[in-house]
Amino acid sequence: MSAQLLDELRTCLGAAAVQTAEAVEARYLKEYFSPQPAATRPLAVVRPRDTAEVAAVLRLCHQYRQPVVAQGGMTGLAGGALPGDGEVVLSLERLRGVEELDAQAGTLTVLAGTPLQEAQEAAAAEGFLLAIDLGARGSCQVAGNVATNAGGNRVIRYGMTRQQVLGLEVVLADGTVLDSLNKMQKNNAGYDLKHLFIGSEGTLGVITRVVFKLEPLPSCVQTALCAVDSYDKVVALLRHAQRRLAGRLSAFEVMWNDFYTLVTTRIPGQRAPLPGGSPFYVLLDLQGADAVADATLFENMLEQALEQELICDAAIASSEKETRSFWHIRDASAEFTVVWPIVESFDISLPIGEIGRFVEALQPRLDAAFPGCEYVHFGHIGDSNLHVCVSVPGATPENFPGHAIQSCLYGLLREFKGSISAEHGVGTHKKAYLPYSRSPAELALMRTLKVALDPQGILAPGRVF
Amino acid sequence: MSAQLLDELRTCLGAAAVQTAEAVEARYLKEYFSPQPAATRPLAVVRPRDTAEVAAVLRLCHQYRQPVVAQGGMTGLAGGALPGDGEVVLSLERLRGVEELDAQAGTLTVLAGTPLQEAQEAAAAEGFLLAIDLGARGSCQVAGNVATNAGGNRVIRYGMTRQQVLGLEVVLADGTVLDSLNKMQKNNAGYDLKHLFIGSEGTLGVITRVVFKLEPLPSCVQTALCAVDSYDKVVALLRHAQRRLAGRLSAFEVMWNDFYTLVTTRIPGQRAPLPGGSPFYVLLDLQGADAVADATLFENMLEQALEQELICDAAIASSEKETRSFWHIRDASAEFTVVWPIVESFDISLPIGEIGRFVEALQPRLDAAFPGCEYVHFGHIGDSNLHVCVSVPGATPENFPGHAIQSCLYGLLREFKGSISAEHGVGTHKKAYLPYSRSPAELALMRTLKVALDPQGILAPGRVF
Repeated sequence: MSAQLLDELRTCLGAAAVQTAEAVEARYLKEYFSPQPAATRPLAVVRPRDTAEVAAVLRLCHQYRQPVVAQGGMTGLAGGALPGDGEVVLSLERLRGVEELDAQAGTLTVLAGTPLQEAQEAAAAEGFLLAIDLGARGSCQVAGNVATNAGGNRVIRYGMTRQQVLGLEVVLADGTVLDSLNKMQKNNAGYDLKHLFIGSEGTLGVITRVVFKLEPLPSCVQTALCAVDSYDKVVALLRHAQRRLAGRLSAFEVMWNDFYTLVTTRIPGQRAPLPGGSPFYVLLDLQGADAVADATLFENMLEQALEQELICDAAIASSEKETRSFWHIRDASAEFTVVWPIVESFDISLPIGEIGRFVEALQPRLDAAFPGCEYVHFGHIGDSNLHVCVSVPGATPENFPGHAIQSCLYGLLREFKGSISAEHGVGTHKKAYLPYSRSPAELALMRTLKVALDPQGILAPGRVF
Repeated sequence: MSAQLLDELRTCLGAAAVQTAEAVEARYLKEYFSPQPAATRPLAVVRPRDTAEVAAVLRLCHQYRQPVVAQGGMTGLAGGALPGDGEVVLSLERLRGVEELDAQAGTLTVLAGTPLQEAQEAAAAEGFLLAIDLGARGSCQVAGNVATNAGGNRVIRYGMTRQQVLGLEVVLADGTVLDSLNKMQKNNAGYDLKHLFIGSEGTLGVITRVVFKLEPLPSCVQTALCAVDSYDKVVALLRHAQRRLAGRLSAFEVMWNDFYTLVTTRIPGQRAPLPGGSPFYVLLDLQGADAVADATLFENMLEQALEQELICDAAIASSEKETRSFWHIRDASAEFTVVWPIVESFDISLPIGEIGRFVEALQPRLDAAFPGCEYVHFGHIGDSNLHVCVSVPGATPENFPGHAIQSCLYGLLREFKGSISAEHGVGTHKKAYLPYSRSPAELALMRTLKVALDPQGILAPGRVF
C-alpha cells in the first residue's frame, strides 16, 4: 500500500518533491531549536508547490488512509509538527511569498510557507503593521502562526494571531479546497469557518493561504522599566497605564525578581537599568505616532504611578539603544541554557488577578518536591500569560525530573482553573494534561469536530487530544 | 406527542413558565421594531430561569425531536428568531443580570438575557468599557449580540462582538452544558470552541452566559464632520486618520450625498453642520484620555487632511451637544420611515476599496430597474460595511418590489464578491442569497458542522442555510 502511495505521490508532484527513507533531511525530523532529529521514521516528506498540489497530496492520503502532518517553520515548541513513524510530512515551505498588499482594504495576502518576517516587511514597506510578532519571526511561517494561533509580544494591544486573520484558504482532509479568502472586517454571511482552523494545530485542515488585516504602522515608541513591590500593584499599574495611554499600551511584560536577578547577574552581556531586589520588574511601552506628545504623556503616566505608589522606581529608555537593552533583559528567556543545561519551560495562563497567588503557591511546592531547584517567573501578564522555567542543578538528561515538575505545576494550575497552554498550543507535549484545563464536555465536542472534519483521522493524528 | 412534551415542560419549569396557543404574548411573535406579530403559531413559549432549566428544555426537545428557537431582544432584523409553526420558543429573558466584574482580570460575566445597556453600565461604573455598542442597546440582549456577532459603531476600534468574548456557557442541542467560561486573553489549550457559537445565530447551541473582555473607558471624545469629494479620498482620509491617531480612531462613518441630503432636508429636527452638495460626508471621532492633547492632535490631523486636499471642509464639534447633533444625522437611518413608508434595507460588506465602485455601478441598475426609485448609501466604511436603503415612491405594501430590489443588489454584489451580511446575520431573510457570498465547499462545511452539533436538526431549523 505504502509503495503504491509513494508511486502516486511521485507521479503527482515529481520525484524530486518526495523524499523517503535515508534521503529525508534532518530538518524535517526536529524542532527548529533542537540539536537532534527525532528517532522516528516518516514514510516520506512531500514538498508541494501550490494549493492544487497540496490538495492532490491530501486526496491521495485520504484515499490510502495515510496519516499526514503539515510542517511550517518547526518553531512551535509543543511537538505537534514532528512526524511520527510512518507519517507523511507535508512541508509548506515552497508555498512562499506575499501575493498582494491591498492598501485600500488594509489587507495582506500571503502564502502558507512565507516566513513571518517577510510578511511583516512587506506590510511595513507600505506603511502598515502586521501585528503579529514573536522571537522566531525569521524562521516561523505564517500558516504555522495561524494554525497554532501564535501569541507574542504585542497581544496586549492587537490580540492573538486569530484577530489578525480575515481570510483563509484551507485544504480539508479529503482534498477539498475551501476558499474563504475574505478581505472584509465584517462578514456575517453564515458560520465564520476560519476559526475552526485557527489554533487547531493542523488537525482539521491544512492552511495554504492567509489574508491578514493590517494596522497603521506606529512611528515612535516610549519604553520604561519599572520596579514594583507587590503583584496587586503590578495589576494596578497595568490598568493605570491602559487607561492613561488610551489603548496604545503595546507591551506589559512582567519579570519576577528571580528572573531579573538570574538575567542581570548570571547571563553575560546584560546590564541592570534598575537595582536588583525589587519583587517585580515591569517592562512596558507605548507605540504611537507623535514622539513629542507621546513622551510627555508617558512620563506623566509614570509620574502619577510613582505618586500613587504603584511603582517604586522607573527608568525610561532615552535612546533606541537603551530600548533594545531593556528588551534584551526580557528576551534573555531564550538564553537560559547558558546557565541551565536542562530546563522545563511552561507557557500557561490564568485570570490576571490570580497569577500572583499562583506563583506564591507554586514556589513552596517546587522547593519541597525538588530540593535545590531553581526557577524563574515572567510573562505577558497584561494578556494573562505566565511563563515559568524550572531547573534542577546537577540533574542529567537521564534523571531530570521533567514529568514530575509538569505534574507538580499542572496539578496546581488545575486547582486554579488555569490553562496549560497560553500561546504555544498543545501539540504532543501537553496532550496528557489537556483534561486539566478542559471539561469532558469540551473534549467530547473537540472530538466531534475532529470526526466531522477528518473522519478517517489522517490529519496530525494524536496531536492536541 | 406534542401534548406529552408540553406536559413534561410544565412539570419541569412550572406551568407559569410555559405559554401555549392563545396565551402566547405577541412580543414573542414579532421583531422588536415590527408593528405586527407574525401569523405563525409556535407550539409554546418557554421561559426557563437558569442554565439547568435551559438544559432540561433542550433535553426534552431533543428527546421529542422538537424544533426550538432561542429568543433574545428580537432586534436582529434578519428574522432568525421569529418562531415557525409548531416550534418551541426558548426565551432567555429570565436569565438576566451581571454576575461578576473582575477588575483585575478585566472581565465581565453576564447572563444571556441581560440587556446590553445593563452590561455596559456595569462596566462603566468600574471605569471599564464594554466595547459593543449599537442603537438597540436598551432592548437587545447580550446572548443575542454574541449569537449574531453584532457589529455597531465601534467596530473600527474594537472589532466585532466576537472579539469582546473571552468565554461562553452554551447548552448543546442534546442538553449538554458546555462550560467554557474562560477569563484569559490567551488560551490555546485545544480548539477554541466558543467561535462555533458566536455568529451561528442559535443554530449550533444556546448561549446562557458570556464572559466579556473589558477595555479601559475613554474619558473624552473629539468628533468632526468632513466633506470629501471622491471615494478614493474617503479611503485616504481613513488611512491618514488611523495613522495619525495611532489606533484611537473610534468611528469612521461615511454618508453619501444622497443620505446627507435626505436627512438634512427631509427629516424633521436635523440641521446641516456643513453645506450640502459634497459627494461624501465623513463622521469620525477620536476617543482618548487627554482632552487637551487629543484636541490638538485631532485638529492637526484634520489640518493636514485639508492641506493634502483629502477633505474640502470640516466642522469640529465644540460641545457635547454638537457631538450629539453630528451623530444625530448618522443615526437618522433609523427614521427613514418618516419619509419612506416602505423601504428595502441592506447590510452588506465589500473590500473597502471596492465600495465606491460598487455604489457607482449599483445606482444606474436601480434607476433602470425601478424608475423613480430613491436610495441612500451610508455605513461603517472603516469596517468595510455599507448600508443601502431603497424606496419606490408610490409603491404599496402589495406591489413594493422588495424581492426584485434584492435580486438587483445582491446580483451585483455577487459580481463584486461581497458579503450579503456584514453585521446583521442571515436569519431567514437572506438565506436564499447565501450562495452569492459562500462557495459550495463553504456551505457543505457549514452543513457538516450543523449535523455534527445538532444531528436531529432541532435548533433554529431553516435559519442561515
